[in-house]
Amino acid sequence: MAEPSSSKSHSFQAPKGTRDMYPADLLKRRFIEKMWRDTAIRHGFEEIDGPTFEHLELYTVKSGEGIVSELFSFRREGGEKDYALRPEFTPTLARMYAAKAGGLPKPTKWFWQQNCFRAEKPQRGRLREFGQWNVDVIGGEGEPEAQARVDAEVISCAIAAFALLGLGPADVQIRIGSRELASAALLRAGVVPERLPEALVLLDKADRMDPVVHQKACADIGFDIIAYRGEAGKIEDGFDLRTSVVEQPVGSVQPDAYDFRGMSALRSELHALGAAPWCRLDLSIARGLAYYTGMVFEVHEAGGKERAIAGGGRYDKLIEMFGGPPTPAVGFGMGDVVLSLVLEDRGLMPQGQALLDKLSEPPASLRPDVFVISNGQPESDAAVRPLVARLRRGGHGGRGGRGEAGEPRSGENRVPPLHARHSYKATKNIGKLLQEASAVHARFAAIIENASEATLKNLGSQEQEKVRVEDIGSRVASSLR
Amino acid sequence: MAEPSSSKSHSFQAPKGTRDMYPADLLKRRFIEKMWRDTAIRHGFEEIDGPTFEHLELYTVKSGEGIVSELFSFRREGGEKDYALRPEFTPTLARMYAAKAGGLPKPTKWFWQQNCFRAEKPQRGRLREFGQWNVDVIGGEGEPEAQARVDAEVISCAIAAFALLGLGPADVQIRIGSRELASAALLRAGVVPERLPEALVLLDKADRMDPVVHQKACADIGFDIIAYRGEAGKIEDGFDLRTSVVEQPVGSVQPDAYDFRGMSALRSELHALGAAPWCRLDLSIARGLAYYTGMVFEVHEAGGKERAIAGGGRYDKLIEMFGGPPTPAVGFGMGDVVLSLVLEDRGLMPQGQALLDKLSEPPASLRPDVFVISNGQPESDAAVRPLVARLRRGGHGGRGGRGEAGEPRSGENRVPPLHARHSYKATKNIGKLLQEASAVHARFAAIIENASEATLKNLGSQEQEKVRVEDIGSRVASSLR
Repeated sequence: MAEPSSSKSHSFQAPKGTRDMYPADLLKRRFIEKMWRDTAIRHGFEEIDGPTFEHLELYTVKSGEGIVSELFSFRREGGEKDYALRPEFTPTLARMYAAKAGGLPKPTKWFWQQNCFRAEKPQRGRLREFGQWNVDVIGGEGEPEAQARVDAEVISCAIAAFALLGLGPADVQIRIGSRELASAALLRAGVVPERLPEALVLLDKADRMDPVVHQKACADIGFDIIAYRGEAGKIEDGFDLRTSVVEQPVGSVQPDAYDFRGMSALRSELHALGAAPWCRLDLSIARGLAYYTGMVFEVHEAGGKERAIAGGGRYDKLIEMFGGPPTPAVGFGMGDVVLSLVLEDRGLMPQGQALLDKLSEPPASLRPDVFVISNGQPESDAAVRPLVARLRRGGHGGRGGRGEAGEPRSGENRVPPLHARHSYKATKNIGKLLQEASAVHARFAAIIENASEATLKNLGSQEQEKVRVEDIGSRVASSLR
Repeated sequence: MAEPSSSKSHSFQAPKGTRDMYPADLLKRRFIEKMWRDTAIRHGFEEIDGPTFEHLELYTVKSGEGIVSELFSFRREGGEKDYALRPEFTPTLARMYAAKAGGLPKPTKWFWQQNCFRAEKPQRGRLREFGQWNVDVIGGEGEPEAQARVDAEVISCAIAAFALLGLGPADVQIRIGSRELASAALLRAGVVPERLPEALVLLDKADRMDPVVHQKACADIGFDIIAYRGEAGKIEDGFDLRTSVVEQPVGSVQPDAYDFRGMSALRSELHALGAAPWCRLDLSIARGLAYYTGMVFEVHEAGGKERAIAGGGRYDKLIEMFGGPPTPAVGFGMGDVVLSLVLEDRGLMPQGQALLDKLSEPPASLRPDVFVISNGQPESDAAVRPLVARLRRGGHGGRGGRGEAGEPRSGENRVPPLHARHSYKATKNIGKLLQEASAVHARFAAIIENASEATLKNLGSQEQEKVRVEDIGSRVASSLR
């Protein structure tokens, strides 16, 4: 249908690529937002917000002038400065963190959910205004093992949201890449070091550019993508994130060309948190944004349909670029547009009375339901994060969702997802850790005594009892009811 | 402190008049938003949303080119059309209603809460980006009595939000004006008919313009504001909204110069809904926006401090201007900036654990808790709206809040606010009304038998019982627990 030509009727339509949301449309969006918000809160993230528009420089300083054509930028009448609607939240987050870095917790765990804006051509799965959920951990230790723990926590948070929405590993896949491993493989495939940044961008765009144009662009910088895919495929075949926590041989690649320490640590942690069945190594994932520095990931519909549902990774240099101290950071953004398509396609979007009931349920408690503490023994230390991940995800051990074999499905001992936290401090002093739990207004503290036993303490009444570690969730949930 | 001069450090600050909201700041804003949202839902409003920016024409068609300097407007690179960040939501609402008018309920009850943007100079109570809550009833009958019922419902919704926030008639005042009464008084004070629109704008700006400039502008159009205030004062003295439901003499004004039918109907209805103690007639209220047509109101801190907390009124011509059918409409907008100042000033903003607990409470149910139906007798008809208003406000009869004498304050029979609805249809067929209740997924229907008795029907189990009208709230609340 041709667009009406009078300027009058033009003004009575929503701008191209934006949405008028009538009540039935908006309820569905609020459903997704509630699942996002509840998940972030249960994982111990605190919500922040910033301006809808920023100084244009906030975006160009990081991404160069090239980004301007993708932005809605403007200047106030008579004003001197250019502004732009936020195309993403990360620059605002980095600015806000840098401004107060000294006074913020280490690590700082923030989430954000509002709209972003891109001046690109609208198409299926991509609009000019869209909802986005950001989850970030900023600060903390820099060792590969410590970073892997935080990376896995962030990935596990994304997985918990999918599980809450009814999606499982048969529906969505977390494709994990690594800028370091990809760079090493690019060098082995003949890319010269100076061309690495461009090669990473072209790698990211491989599926979205016209193949002929892409091939030409690769050839121009001496990037033999066939050779790269061969090398990357060998690594991916030899390093399966799903099957084992034990280091595997990485097949036929030249082992000293690669440093697998970070990826091995991430694999162990993903297994410990019950996240591994959702994940696979995919060195075609490079992420387009220039600020990523290490682990990167994208979430895709398992059949490869649709654009990415979410994307994220490490950006260890960004806070410094905005005037803050050197600060490791990791996070992801998830949009509402593709996610809605996937949920509708699978019949997972509630309708009618079920949708009204779902949206009327109590939100995740902002007070932690339970704060998990180790008694200091290595066995107990190792149990803390897996337990916390399971409690946050609820259900039967935290691997919920459809399409996974071997999970009991009886509703009897189904535990609701809980707001669970643990300390990031190095101290093993139980008194100090209990103080930390009280300071964040937690209702219970669970002190892990060994792999199977714990002491559960009501921080209000100060009563305590011995419980089995596996029963902590149901004990806490029934006390809160 | 002087602003740093390098353009680099400029880019690392939030744009002037916008807010960086760290977790503690955002929790307070979420508290206000939750109270707004819960109140709107309990009053039977459904949430909508639209684009953050619109075609610039959407704003100029209604307000003229003069508004452009107050807007953040822009054009996409290479694009042909101008856009602007929304300075308010009403034009979007009118556009959305006009586009689907034929298929929407009569009346349509919508609420909206997001951010708006004004390119004005930031000052206390006014920012360039701010949160706003809009509540609107669009469509319905055009008779003054029918309009007064809807006007009172909208005002009562604003009052319920204040009560929920802990504010009472001693804290905030609803100042109700009338464009018709004000226009009649302006004519009596010597303004010629052609100058009425300008005189109304100057009336609205009286407290915000430089007095000398204002006086000059009034003189230029022959507007003797002293004479107007004298005439308006006589009307206000003779027509007290708070003290009586019986028509009072309007003092010394020439009675046939004014049509008090609409204002009398509004007064009766405000009394019936328990809203009258919060209200007073104030003919200095004119509202600046050109689209208002009848009753207008502003909410002010009772001591006259701060800018207006909320403002609204009737805009019966606006839907037509956007291509829809002639449609009466009434609504208000409430901002978060001044409201936050008032709450903080009175110590009503919860802190620490209390704030976390408040935000973790269940939201208002999207399914109506109770749908109130008359058995068709005039006595029962008259009881419906007062009962619904009381149920929506909860507490001890719906006049909650501080500073009001004579209200019992024991917590024993305190009823929580409920989501209550009634039909706007003319039918007296109880079967049809019960069908309407079921169609919106109400949990209970309350059929009013006479001023004191009702039949309460559980629409799930179909069980029913006789109850006293005054006990409906507590019966429904205890069943839902």
